[in-house]
Amino acid sequence: MSRPSSATSATGPVRLSAQANAALRPGIAPTVTAGFWHERRTTNARVGIPQGPKLLESAGNLHNLRLAAGQADGEFIGDFPFQDTDVYKWLEAASWQLAQNPADVDVDADPTDPADAADPTPDPESELADQVAQIVALIAAAQEPDGYLNTWFQTGKGQGRFTDLSWGHELYCAGHLIQAALAHHRATGRTELLDVARRFADHVDAMFGPPGSGSPLDTFDAHPEVETALVELYRETGERRYLDLAGYFVDRHGHGAHGGATYCQDRVPLREAETVEGHAVRQLYLLAAAADLAAETGEPALEQACIRLWHAMTTTKTHLTGGVGAHHEQEDFGAPFELPNERAYCETCAAIASVQFSWRMALLTGQARYSDLIERTLFNGFLAGVSLDGEGWLYVNPLQVRDGYVDAGSDQSSRRTAWFRCACCPPNVMRLLASLEHYLSSTDGQGLQIHQYATGRFQGEADGLPLSVTVDTSYPWNGRVTVTVHETPDTPWTLSLRIPQWCEQFTATYSGANPQTNTPLTELTDARPDNGWLRIERSWTVGDEIVLDLAMPARLVAADPRVDAVRGCVAIERGPLVYCLEQADHPGGGLDAVTIDPAAPLTVEERPDLLGGVTTVVASGHRRTPPPTDWWPYQAQGTPAAASYRSTPLDLIAIPYFAWANRETGSMRVWLPTEQH
Amino acid sequence: MSRPSSATSATGPVRLSAQANAALRPGIAPTVTAGFWHERRTTNARVGIPQGPKLLESAGNLHNLRLAAGQADGEFIGDFPFQDTDVYKWLEAASWQLAQNPADVDVDADPTDPADAADPTPDPESELADQVAQIVALIAAAQEPDGYLNTWFQTGKGQGRFTDLSWGHELYCAGHLIQAALAHHRATGRTELLDVARRFADHVDAMFGPPGSGSPLDTFDAHPEVETALVELYRETGERRYLDLAGYFVDRHGHGAHGGATYCQDRVPLREAETVEGHAVRQLYLLAAAADLAAETGEPALEQACIRLWHAMTTTKTHLTGGVGAHHEQEDFGAPFELPNERAYCETCAAIASVQFSWRMALLTGQARYSDLIERTLFNGFLAGVSLDGEGWLYVNPLQVRDGYVDAGSDQSSRRTAWFRCACCPPNVMRLLASLEHYLSSTDGQGLQIHQYATGRFQGEADGLPLSVTVDTSYPWNGRVTVTVHETPDTPWTLSLRIPQWCEQFTATYSGANPQTNTPLTELTDARPDNGWLRIERSWTVGDEIVLDLAMPARLVAADPRVDAVRGCVAIERGPLVYCLEQADHPGGGLDAVTIDPAAPLTVEERPDLLGGVTTVVASGHRRTPPPTDWWPYQAQGTPAAASYRSTPLDLIAIPYFAWANRETGSMRVWLPTEQH
Repeated sequence: MSRPSSATSATGPVRLSAQANAALRPGIAPTVTAGFWHERRTTNARVGIPQGPKLLESAGNLHNLRLAAGQADGEFIGDFPFQDTDVYKWLEAASWQLAQNPADVDVDADPTDPADAADPTPDPESELADQVAQIVALIAAAQEPDGYLNTWFQTGKGQGRFTDLSWGHELYCAGHLIQAALAHHRATGRTELLDVARRFADHVDAMFGPPGSGSPLDTFDAHPEVETALVELYRETGERRYLDLAGYFVDRHGHGAHGGATYCQDRVPLREAETVEGHAVRQLYLLAAAADLAAETGEPALEQACIRLWHAMTTTKTHLTGGVGAHHEQEDFGAPFELPNERAYCETCAAIASVQFSWRMALLTGQARYSDLIERTLFNGFLAGVSLDGEGWLYVNPLQVRDGYVDAGSDQSSRRTAWFRCACCPPNVMRLLASLEHYLSSTDGQGLQIHQYATGRFQGEADGLPLSVTVDTSYPWNGRVTVTVHETPDTPWTLSLRIPQWCEQFTATYSGANPQTNTPLTELTDARPDNGWLRIERSWTVGDEIVLDLAMPARLVAADPRVDAVRGCVAIERGPLVYCLEQADHPGGGLDAVTIDPAAPLTVEERPDLLGGVTTVVASGHRRTPPPTDWWPYQAQGTPAAASYRSTPLDLIAIPYFAWANRETGSMRVWLPTEQH
Repeated sequence: MSRPSSATSATGPVRLSAQANAALRPGIAPTVTAGFWHERRTTNARVGIPQGPKLLESAGNLHNLRLAAGQADGEFIGDFPFQDTDVYKWLEAASWQLAQNPADVDVDADPTDPADAADPTPDPESELADQVAQIVALIAAAQEPDGYLNTWFQTGKGQGRFTDLSWGHELYCAGHLIQAALAHHRATGRTELLDVARRFADHVDAMFGPPGSGSPLDTFDAHPEVETALVELYRETGERRYLDLAGYFVDRHGHGAHGGATYCQDRVPLREAETVEGHAVRQLYLLAAAADLAAETGEPALEQACIRLWHAMTTTKTHLTGGVGAHHEQEDFGAPFELPNERAYCETCAAIASVQFSWRMALLTGQARYSDLIERTLFNGFLAGVSLDGEGWLYVNPLQVRDGYVDAGSDQSSRRTAWFRCACCPPNVMRLLASLEHYLSSTDGQGLQIHQYATGRFQGEADGLPLSVTVDTSYPWNGRVTVTVHETPDTPWTLSLRIPQWCEQFTATYSGANPQTNTPLTELTDARPDNGWLRIERSWTVGDEIVLDLAMPARLVAADPRVDAVRGCVAIERGPLVYCLEQADHPGGGLDAVTIDPAAPLTVEERPDLLGGVTTVVASGHRRTPPPTDWWPYQAQGTPAAASYRSTPLDLIAIPYFAWANRETGSMRVWLPTEQH
């Protein structure tokens, strides 16, 4: 990549650069020390991750590994061939956690607070390290001499190794094993799990490949995951064959190895695809791998396919929350603009997969829009997947729960549960929260790009030299972000701040630390974001401060009219947060017949007492009281039943969507009919 | 039931009676000789039913019976334990067909028409009788000595008899066997299949019952079907234990025998249920049995539950087409007012089950509304399940197919297929069409109630004496129905004509055949329907004529505002028909962005050239052309994307919904956004 020339002196005026988008790379991950995400990560560290081993024990996952290792008797417990991945994902989460600074994790703990004093895991790190070591040893013991590892098939379930790649998930499991091993290696410096993973990867490499390669199986696992893992294994080890194997698997899609099944991502080759389709997680893990490969190989056709498919997803198949996957059946994408509310599938894992794909696209292209979607997905469609206390989960994330909703008690319930029969989502949430810092910033070698705002230390590089800033913010509750230069080389570099897609107005001010050479306070009046980035290029002095103020009024949004499900409705948003109504805040009736007055003002209220501290938005509306219905609810047009409704005014108290389903059960809705409907 | 006293002379003026609703019973079934349903039944007789044996052979169903009979080697073919029912349902259809007058069936055949001359089954009846006899013999051979019969379990699939009643479907299969046997017995007078069915029923009776009954199994099959069959077997044989067994099974629901699963109709006892829920077909077959039992036992609590649940279904969980079942996943009912369009499940079998339940309710209560729903379901949600040529099927019946729809090729596709992996629907359609006459009229012993209008001869009874009328009509294309008395006792009786729920205006005229005693033409100006029935009580003379004219303008309908899926939309209806747009009639673009002008007139056009002859409704609207979208389809309210659409006028050519998916594939929609949305 080329660096724009800088003609300014090192201490000259602030410049806003028009730097072309270019490939970015993750810098050294920032350290998040306080604020919104820190709170969630602390809960994850203190409640979420510690409960893993017990849950994996009770669900049978560890038993299954012991069976495969010859350390236990009995039968495989559970219904699925991919249950090992629950262990691997937890192990990845625990490993990222071990890599955190323990002081950061417990920064909120207050020994004088009874809740904290009662914490049964006052020293989670050392116990966690023990648990990780034990499970790593168990996994190593379960591995076959030739490197194969999958307890379902090892314990006699199914028809034998690699006989059912549409549903067997063996390479999907290998992928999660490799990712766990890389995290474990990076966190601890140890190689036990990495050795296991490489043995399995080598076995896969020996077994799979095109005709003439000497490998007996010319096909792929219909649940992608091993592909991104292999690219990362290549990056870690430098062994090109892992990258080639990942490329082979991606290329093999769409040529009928799985009968052309859409569910298996086999209907059309990825480079020819026009839209995202099939099982949402499978599609997005595949695309994440394609983006990885495009970054490594520079192949334009693959990059263009990734851009095209991301665009098709966001323009036509993404819910307001960033959630994806319209169908419960087959957990797949629907048709364009088919975005139901109550039956939105929006699997938590699909939100995670979307973040993974978008992050790779952000690095590949340098475009801010990918991080816009990441922000929306993280704060809404993803975060709703875990309860505020860290112990309750949602597999699916609907945008509406009706008054008459009956919980049938399945994994796909709209009520939180402590674990799932198919428990893919909870450890996936744990690993993303534990590794979240990796998605917050990047460097292009000429500065620092801050993609997501969180209080902490962000690091980058300019001309090979390290630089760092501290960020202080109450985001997403408040739009002020203060960036202070903490370490800087003498040469100029560019600080890039993402101006979120939702933000219609912002100011940025510069305050120089050196009164001799810098204007003390300068409003950057010509601050026009370049493709979503506010780029500030200059020579920096330690202590220089940029204050970014993102105006964050509550707002109403409407959908493209082709989104049939929300015709005549608006939704409330503020900053990056999507809001919803919950029945708990609206006693005396349900939410099925509530309307909003879109012309009335919206009131923002800080509510430290509510849901662990949230900012609510209060709107004006009505609750309609339907008359007793005759037996048929469809009437001649011109005599709408709505006109005959009694209607009583109602304050609509909207809470952030991520905080729903944390109180008594009841109805919920994101999209609100306007009063004329 | 009590009969209202009649003070008029036998030849006095026409009276409209205010007869109370009362239990009805099916009269001798009418003979349908021409018109809409006759055409469909002829296609069913000439194309649908004859293809059955070949399809059952190629799908493995007959092979499985041969396996169980020891007449073949190999393994069970197919994926489901209920595959025998495909055979039983076909056998039931074929038996009803054998009971028809062959002359009626072939009335449309024209030997000079090449299409008819090329018909490979010029004499379907005798060949059909042979096929039926062969398959009956095969079934008899497959039965175990103790009466058990289910080829899945007999050939070693599953874990053994009656070990998996949540999914095993053994009594469901028994139910269809019994129904086929009763039809076969009634059609042919033969007893071979009835003997098989009774042996199985006796085995079931020996195996299932409450504690203390001596039967080892105190549970039920989670897919109801045997219950209605047992009631009918009781009616045929007079053996009370069959009725008691049906009652036992119905009562056993909701007490945890299936873990309380909603899918299994086990969450709540039926008499306590407040709404329909779970698997739609299971729910409705159970309710049909409950209505049967209420009719036989007169138990008020059971009748009230049936009334309550039917009302809950129609007011909150029925699509405009009469289709039911909102979810693909689990094929179940959704929450109240959860009535999606593109993901409407509306399984063809559920429409059939709804007709069966409603018909029993019509007989039980005498209320016309049940036949209103039957009419709507038959003409729309049911009939769309089979193609106009009788060879293509839909398992699910959506109300919308989007421009970007991709056919994943499953049973649940929105494109017609020749058969299904799970082929429950096609033979179910065949048996309902072949027995449709049973749902058209009833007698209360004091006259005749005509529930559905079709050209043919309708029969009833008054004071124990037979009566009959002929009906001539082009319904549903035209609202004129001419009823002529063909046979009448001397005493007065009541002719009851259902005034459809959709009909806002009608006239009825009386024309006496005997000029000496009757007014030649009388408009029945005081004709006010009583609970949906126009009741004309008088002494009748052969040749007396009633002409009912149901005004049938095209109309727009809107839904209860709580049906979120169709907010801001209207649908086109005419008479009992729901209309839809198909892409084939609107070249140059798709239907995703089409709107209708609800204030513009609707034009009715007879189109003998189109889709075998239909009446279309032409409306005025626009096709909007969305501008190229940025990547995010949700915008701040007040800047709706819709306003920036280019919009071109478009004639909207609506066809009857039942006729959709009979041309080139493309998009379809029933509900049309109005222009302000």
